Amino acid sequence: MRSEIELSVKPVRIWLVGFGTVGRWLARALDSNAERLAVRYVIAVTVVGLANARDGFIYDGKGRDLGSLLGLSSLADQPGVRRWPSAIEGLRATEADVLVEVTASPLTDGEPGYEHMCEALRRGIPVVTSNKWPVALHGVELAELARARGAAFRAESTVMSGTPVLSALIDGLAGAVPAGLRGLLNATANFILSRMAEGRPYEDALAEAQRAGLAERDPAADVEGHDAVAKLMILSALAFGAQLRREQVTRRAITDTARSQVDEAESTGARLKHVATLEFSEADGAGNVTARVEPELVRSDDPLAHVEGTTNAVVFRASPIGEVTIIGPGAGPQLAGQGVLSDLIAVARTTRD
Amino acid sequence: MRSEIELSVKPVRIWLVGFGTVGRWLARALDSNAERLAVRYVIAVTVVGLANARDGFIYDGKGRDLGSLLGLSSLADQPGVRRWPSAIEGLRATEADVLVEVTASPLTDGEPGYEHMCEALRRGIPVVTSNKWPVALHGVELAELARARGAAFRAESTVMSGTPVLSALIDGLAGAVPAGLRGLLNATANFILSRMAEGRPYEDALAEAQRAGLAERDPAADVEGHDAVAKLMILSALAFGAQLRREQVTRRAITDTARSQVDEAESTGARLKHVATLEFSEADGAGNVTARVEPELVRSDDPLAHVEGTTNAVVFRASPIGEVTIIGPGAGPQLAGQGVLSDLIAVARTTRD
Repeated sequence: MRSEIELSVKPVRIWLVGFGTVGRWLARALDSNAERLAVRYVIAVTVVGLANARDGFIYDGKGRDLGSLLGLSSLADQPGVRRWPSAIEGLRATEADVLVEVTASPLTDGEPGYEHMCEALRRGIPVVTSNKWPVALHGVELAELARARGAAFRAESTVMSGTPVLSALIDGLAGAVPAGLRGLLNATANFILSRMAEGRPYEDALAEAQRAGLAERDPAADVEGHDAVAKLMILSALAFGAQLRREQVTRRAITDTARSQVDEAESTGARLKHVATLEFSEADGAGNVTARVEPELVRSDDPLAHVEGTTNAVVFRASPIGEVTIIGPGAGPQLAGQGVLSDLIAVARTTRD
Repeated sequence: MRSEIELSVKPVRIWLVGFGTVGRWLARALDSNAERLAVRYVIAVTVVGLANARDGFIYDGKGRDLGSLLGLSSLADQPGVRRWPSAIEGLRATEADVLVEVTASPLTDGEPGYEHMCEALRRGIPVVTSNKWPVALHGVELAELARARGAAFRAESTVMSGTPVLSALIDGLAGAVPAGLRGLLNATANFILSRMAEGRPYEDALAEAQRAGLAERDPAADVEGHDAVAKLMILSALAFGAQLRREQVTRRAITDTARSQVDEAESTGARLKHVATLEFSEADGAGNVTARVEPELVRSDDPLAHVEGTTNAVVFRASPIGEVTIIGPGAGPQLAGQGVLSDLIAVARTTRD
């Protein structure tokens, strides 16, 4: 039964910076779910600015038809739009209600994503992002800038894709004093170790992950733990308020995991898992943080022991709550897109009219 | 490392309606964490209105000292405050930034909590509540009223206390199409069934729960499933957008659970659990919802099978995410208070200056 309250649909104009897998999934989801978003969330999202690395930034204040955007082979030579050679130039020159930043900026400096986010937040424009390294490297600063400007900053899809980890830990446990967390934060690594536990060699398991589109041709980010390090740094910054530098996180790869270690673990009923750990002895300072990502023997009564394949998990400890466990899918382009969509809806609900 | 961004602490004036266990825990937490809230969340909460059922509503626009409020044996005869015989009269006559509604209104009509929440939301004032039945009975309407008025409405502590279930499902999975959920939503019932699985008789297990302060002297709300029904209705309303009536939820108590059923379950490696289930065949309508709370055999490979004692859990299914599981404590006055605190922080972050 619907009540008789009048709701007027709120227009939300977005800059969509990044038009790869996640950006395209989002555009498709916004297009095919337009009616659902209007009915359920009372919002109507239009893309006014669109950028990719190759063609730069195009802008149309009236909003572009999403279907036709998805059909474009290039952003160049579009009639009736203004165009800049780079996203940052376009952002500086135009207006929107939300920046959706879904490029993938490298671990060296998180650029150009970091600059895009700063540009929006400085102007009080909310930011939604799936771009891990800018948040990993500058999360505390970005969150403080957002607070200072009264703009939302959300990055749900950067940790465990669309599984709602950051919403739960940042909003849902706000005010609790965090003590630490343990997690399986990389889908590919967990998939490989799960297959090895079934008796398969590392190389076979990796090849299967690559065939399934899980691991890149160069699987270093996943199997060497860099991706899990980024996620741990994001959790530290956004859920604990403590900025870590990359070199502060101890990192050991699963590439050297010996068959014998896996077998030995199994023989004692334990499991070998690539575990990401944060320990805090002080709530709001980075002074007493220890952080590591490494293969670890996990006892069978540990909630992480039974998390298999591409499923990921995080066990968060805080006072006065105790332990909260969140388990869900850890990867997939449509899942990262879903995380971005959920952030966009959450932001749209709270933007000023 | 703190960045150099200037943050000015935002004052948040609250009406605190309900000054029992949860209200007092919250007042204490706000008092003892004032500095932490200012540093980490950049807010300063003051209680301008305070009500209980016995003494009515008192108001002091300057805000009352929390420590002295906690020492009061009665709200009557306070110097320097205005006073009304009931909360609703005081709410109508005064102003605040957020209503914190922590009374416990009965399942018959959810009053007076429902009226309190409507009064605030109609005026565009955000509401945070731990009061189950008003949300169970009127959740869709309250959420729509909140949206129409641009005011936040949060009820994290109504489901699994401070465990961040609603944040995750409402905000974190916004835009996903819900398919259903299963959960263990009552701490006392799960505690009793866990003890029975260890071989203890029902009466012993109940008595232990009562000694531990888990179950009331009249344990009907817990063991007969009414409390779990309320939580299921809240999840349906706020996470699925579908309002259920109480009589639409099939309910079977655990009071009649025979020793032999528990033993038989154990002998097959399964567990007997008091499972709350919602099934949706349509995303946004209440037409095809089925909802039930009943003792159920749960196989050992089911994530709910290993959730023991006062720990609760919910397994949520949605497209395109698949399955998300959240496990955490299900009861405790300080945990309900923590849930209210997290909502209050989330609301304060997004209220207009």
